[in-house]
Amino acid sequence: MKILLIGAGTVGQGLLEILRDKAADLREKYHFQPVIVGIATRSRGTLHHPQGLDPAALLTALAQGDFTAYPETSGLERTHDVLTLIRTCGAEVMVEATHTNLDTAQPALDYCHAALDAGQHIVLANKGPIALAYHELREKAGQMGKQVRFEGTVMAGTPSLMLAMEALAGCTIHEARGILNGTTNYILTQMAQGMDYAQALAQAQALGYAEADPTADVGGWDAAGKVLILAAALYNQKMRLSDLSVTGITDITAADVAAAQAAGECYKLIAKITPTGGSVAPQRLPMTDPLAIVSGATNAITFNTDLMGDITLVGAGAGRLQTGFALLADLLAIQRQDRKP
Amino acid sequence: MKILLIGAGTVGQGLLEILRDKAADLREKYHFQPVIVGIATRSRGTLHHPQGLDPAALLTALAQGDFTAYPETSGLERTHDVLTLIRTCGAEVMVEATHTNLDTAQPALDYCHAALDAGQHIVLANKGPIALAYHELREKAGQMGKQVRFEGTVMAGTPSLMLAMEALAGCTIHEARGILNGTTNYILTQMAQGMDYAQALAQAQALGYAEADPTADVGGWDAAGKVLILAAALYNQKMRLSDLSVTGITDITAADVAAAQAAGECYKLIAKITPTGGSVAPQRLPMTDPLAIVSGATNAITFNTDLMGDITLVGAGAGRLQTGFALLADLLAIQRQDRKP
Repeated sequence: MKILLIGAGTVGQGLLEILRDKAADLREKYHFQPVIVGIATRSRGTLHHPQGLDPAALLTALAQGDFTAYPETSGLERTHDVLTLIRTCGAEVMVEATHTNLDTAQPALDYCHAALDAGQHIVLANKGPIALAYHELREKAGQMGKQVRFEGTVMAGTPSLMLAMEALAGCTIHEARGILNGTTNYILTQMAQGMDYAQALAQAQALGYAEADPTADVGGWDAAGKVLILAAALYNQKMRLSDLSVTGITDITAADVAAAQAAGECYKLIAKITPTGGSVAPQRLPMTDPLAIVSGATNAITFNTDLMGDITLVGAGAGRLQTGFALLADLLAIQRQDRKP
Repeated sequence: MKILLIGAGTVGQGLLEILRDKAADLREKYHFQPVIVGIATRSRGTLHHPQGLDPAALLTALAQGDFTAYPETSGLERTHDVLTLIRTCGAEVMVEATHTNLDTAQPALDYCHAALDAGQHIVLANKGPIALAYHELREKAGQMGKQVRFEGTVMAGTPSLMLAMEALAGCTIHEARGILNGTTNYILTQMAQGMDYAQALAQAQALGYAEADPTADVGGWDAAGKVLILAAALYNQKMRLSDLSVTGITDITAADVAAAQAAGECYKLIAKITPTGGSVAPQRLPMTDPLAIVSGATNAITFNTDLMGDITLVGAGAGRLQTGFALLADLLAIQRQDRKP
């Protein structure tokens, strides 16, 4: 499978690490033989080789700063711009792992269109194009007989989307509600153990869970982006952030958390989506709710269905290898559907 | 998709109900158009119609006792024995939903071989053939280019096997541990609320969760059968019940349960499988374990993996529609893999 990787930050490097370390296992167990024909980054250069680039050498070069240190070989090209690379690299799948932009989805959205126009399946860890433009991408992909996959956009490699869209196909999903942001869940977990909000946020920042400007997480906007993705994936609904009711955790006090605990409950930032709308808001849950005991940076989602009642999935919601695995899972799924049994 | 259904007990009727009630939905959303070309039961007769049998009329006839009341139509045959029906009915998929026999897997195992020989995919809710003979069935299916699917054998339609074998493909699963028997979990949950074992068992029997002879459940043997299936599915291990360490819940007293609660823990019957062996035994879990809050007849499983850490799935583990849905999920998965995107 010829792959073009756009973006070599944490997630892209996670995928490269997995492909470097598990190559033999993937070949033996799944007959999966990835060939990275191209890689593009915003500031660290671009490489193209029709016979494939070496994941280990890519990681070594990135560790030194950029692709300058990638070994020179016959056939290697270093000078393409991204759109030219997409059009000429001969990939079967484009993997989009650049940073999420929930306002415009760019430049990733242009890359997705170019890849579909070039006859490539597209696999995204980037939430922007799915949250803002899933319908147009899916329609174009359908016309080309190609797939749009985006497991990594919700709960990293914990397969919430494969569960909802494939394993639960045939069920009607009345509602999905989950803990879809690990940073806020970490902060709320620390507050349940006695910290106040400022202390817990500072610790989350010290551990790298929260950014210096934590607004996207603590304001509920990261979770809201995932609600848009679930609305598109589960209900074919085209929503915008402005359609959602979004409340973050910044107003939750240590006293609120203590009052909940005294009542045998706990605060969680719950993202919810039904066929008619979506929301993100802190909620007090009884400790019997499967979401209540999900602690730290872990994520979870409960699908309420007609035939199966509630189905809950709990797992990592972020991380280098965890999101890198989401990309691998989508690549393997594409291979499964492209091959007859 | 032409389907032959073997067995019309609770599970088979669950599938028929779903096909009756969701026909339009399945056709519109998944382009799934099932045609039941044959149905076979041990004591209620056998029907074959190359143009398809009507699920609603089958359920009506079964509600009256047997297929005598199924309307006579041109082309309908009522006299085949099961093996002849398998060989001549022209089905693309055989669905095996007769009772589990963990000693011999018969007669279901013969039906599976006959169906594969006739070029049919096979879908099972019956644990016997998978627990005892998965390897030979998978090998034969592979030679024929056919699939063997068995989602309903573990946790009913809660997609534990699709999660492990497809969504988590690419991860190494170090261990699976779960609550795989709803009856014993119901009894332990009642005991945690103050009943003694005999009272809780009697209530489980009154509600239809436990059989008059509850040995298969309370002795751990039903869960052990599922451990054999997971050993085959996850690790390609051919184990027998005698290879497993199996302890049921019959020796757990109200005093044991109270002592666990006093220590902030709870008893669960935990089925465990690793690449080197399997077991079923009651264990005391801290309340922070995702399995600890799984109450009543609900099931759950945690996969410990290399790339994703722990992934936990919680959902129904039994029931007419829930196991019927497992069969539908397998049929839809066969359709997905047989069709190009």
